[in-house]
Amino acid sequence: MAGIAEIIAVGSEMLTPDHLDTNSLFLTRKLNECGFEVRLKTIVGDTESDIAAVLRSALVRSDVIVFSGGLGPTEDDLTRQAVSTVLGRPLETDQAILDALRTRFAARGIRMAAINERQAQVIQGAEVLKNPRGTAPGMWIEDRARHVVLLPGPPRELMTMFESEALPRLEKMGGGRRLIRKSFRVIGMPESEVDAIVAPLYTAYPSIQTTILAAAGHIAIHLTRWVEPGGEIRDLEELTAAIQAKLGMAVFTSSEESLEEVVGKLLRASGRTLSVAESCTSGIIGMRITRVPGSSEYFLGGILCYSNELKMKLCGVAPELLERHGAVSAETAQALARGVRITTRSSIGLSMTGIAGPGGGTAEKPVGLVYAGVSDGSRTVHDSRNLPGDREAIRERAALFALALLREFLMSGP
Amino acid sequence: MAGIAEIIAVGSEMLTPDHLDTNSLFLTRKLNECGFEVRLKTIVGDTESDIAAVLRSALVRSDVIVFSGGLGPTEDDLTRQAVSTVLGRPLETDQAILDALRTRFAARGIRMAAINERQAQVIQGAEVLKNPRGTAPGMWIEDRARHVVLLPGPPRELMTMFESEALPRLEKMGGGRRLIRKSFRVIGMPESEVDAIVAPLYTAYPSIQTTILAAAGHIAIHLTRWVEPGGEIRDLEELTAAIQAKLGMAVFTSSEESLEEVVGKLLRASGRTLSVAESCTSGIIGMRITRVPGSSEYFLGGILCYSNELKMKLCGVAPELLERHGAVSAETAQALARGVRITTRSSIGLSMTGIAGPGGGTAEKPVGLVYAGVSDGSRTVHDSRNLPGDREAIRERAALFALALLREFLMSGP
Repeated sequence: MAGIAEIIAVGSEMLTPDHLDTNSLFLTRKLNECGFEVRLKTIVGDTESDIAAVLRSALVRSDVIVFSGGLGPTEDDLTRQAVSTVLGRPLETDQAILDALRTRFAARGIRMAAINERQAQVIQGAEVLKNPRGTAPGMWIEDRARHVVLLPGPPRELMTMFESEALPRLEKMGGGRRLIRKSFRVIGMPESEVDAIVAPLYTAYPSIQTTILAAAGHIAIHLTRWVEPGGEIRDLEELTAAIQAKLGMAVFTSSEESLEEVVGKLLRASGRTLSVAESCTSGIIGMRITRVPGSSEYFLGGILCYSNELKMKLCGVAPELLERHGAVSAETAQALARGVRITTRSSIGLSMTGIAGPGGGTAEKPVGLVYAGVSDGSRTVHDSRNLPGDREAIRERAALFALALLREFLMSGP
Repeated sequence: MAGIAEIIAVGSEMLTPDHLDTNSLFLTRKLNECGFEVRLKTIVGDTESDIAAVLRSALVRSDVIVFSGGLGPTEDDLTRQAVSTVLGRPLETDQAILDALRTRFAARGIRMAAINERQAQVIQGAEVLKNPRGTAPGMWIEDRARHVVLLPGPPRELMTMFESEALPRLEKMGGGRRLIRKSFRVIGMPESEVDAIVAPLYTAYPSIQTTILAAAGHIAIHLTRWVEPGGEIRDLEELTAAIQAKLGMAVFTSSEESLEEVVGKLLRASGRTLSVAESCTSGIIGMRITRVPGSSEYFLGGILCYSNELKMKLCGVAPELLERHGAVSAETAQALARGVRITTRSSIGLSMTGIAGPGGGTAEKPVGLVYAGVSDGSRTVHDSRNLPGDREAIRERAALFALALLREFLMSGP
């Protein structure tokens, strides 16, 4: 049985239309890893009574309650005060923290405003969690078989403090229970098809939780399973192997890599260089490929051939070909891939041309129609799709479709 | 006084490390607009007792409780059941919904599985909210001066239903009270500088809530103010004018436009065309510019000159210049802007070259150093920055820095 955790994010800015609580993704992953299931997340404003009310509910149902935010020096920072009230433990000034705060300010040549003394207030009986990246210390409070953890809101401070101070304590509590995760990313088939293939496999393993989700440009399959100390995970290994065998090439990673990382490894391994000719995506493919550190080893660059003139001038597409087949066609995609390879002297050229919309579609060539091409000089391939979604979605999907074609080319080639 | 709303998102996937509730951003904006402040947000799993517990707490403190998710046909969809239990109102099958469901399935030639009948169950006394984009209907329930709104989880379904069915009802309840928002986006100065300039202005208007936030590539200033029916907003207009006057050119939009939209309008208005030469950003600038529908009117394309060879071959940078000053230099940025303009025959060339890291930095040219250039043939400008952050952040910021330089060029030029 997993322990039950609950996350409470404090901050009025997260109750506006502009801000989400994103710390909870990190916290959830870490809590899962050391044996805790997240049962509930609450986002509450800088209002002491609301923070207190949420904590009271949480204490009834959860073993560990993790707060983020509301530990700063201003009057809006009310987490300390609210937790102190609910647990009936007064705040006490911690002289060591106060001295450290003063030293910190002095080192920067700034007089410490009195308001900062609030950050030296510690809930009676709490263990202080060090904050190497900021001024607000955290707290770890054990109270009648519940554990309340107070972390600062800024993500860098929160992550560092959690890793170094909270995680070791939680791991001890978790007693070796942990959540094992295994993921696949699949490209080239819709969610329903992935589900149809995989469902007969995972239904045989009821203790493994399987979710299939449409992510940006790929379908993700997540398998999770709670493992008791010393427990076996043979069933997870079996299911993993069965899914991999069934989906084959459609799985582009089982280690949460991006498609551009996978393609980069294939290029590096084969010692080949790449260039791109992008029309409708106009930079998305290049941006993705170069997101990977070290991509300059295999990526030379490319042409954003948004206008037909640049398709002809820089990618060597013949005017007659454009005239006869149009800019969005298999012929143009192939010509672009061949042409950009020659212009840039790369081993492989990759192209994308399509209609991203909202305008420009016709009955014959509707919005969403895209063509990708790959050429290494001796072998040229192409493929097309009718992609759904708005302009932004079509462009993102088109870039991934082109990368998927490149991956196939690199895996199947000589 | 604003009404108090609370948002409850139902779905176990939002309690994993992979998914956030994003519907609440849309809901918060809409609720604010029709007079409701969001006091609390909760994310709860597909567990009936947890959904019920959260609703019980919410009924004590909030006027309007908006649920998203948990209305589908499967056994995991428990919102209906939980709300029915807490309010003490039984579920009743709505024959009209059932018939519509059957018709919908029949039209697609599919036999309706019995499980779908759950979607025809309506809480006693609820008004049914139509779902033109899906099968699960929503509900509007008035109960002892509280209002509970049940919306489906998929964003497209939720947004459409909210706009057409919930919003008119909420506006009536709001009685004309509303939250007025005014935003500025500022580029080219850090958050602290914006705050130092703006704080003396906004502190004179205590009834206007002012927040200054570092967003992706710009600083956002949000002013919000609750307005009673028939109330004046002269103070908001005054403050808006004062901020605009003080920040001047640094404000690139006061209507939530992106920098690429602003630049696109300037290009369109001046009848000029643009091309880009991107080294370290390698596509991000082109991608941003072409994100704007209709950008083909002024954007011709560009060169991803990731390798030095392409900087020379396609952007006309002299080998001696590269040799003497290096690829990351003011001279190369200017040469790239001039060169890409000539290669692509555009009116204006825009360039970006820099060190995105993590490798490649030196003491003299550290990671984060970037140069942008703009040229129209007769006039060439450049600027540089030492950008903070990791590879991804530096690249994003570099692209926006280049667009900001282009904006300045377009606004200052002849």
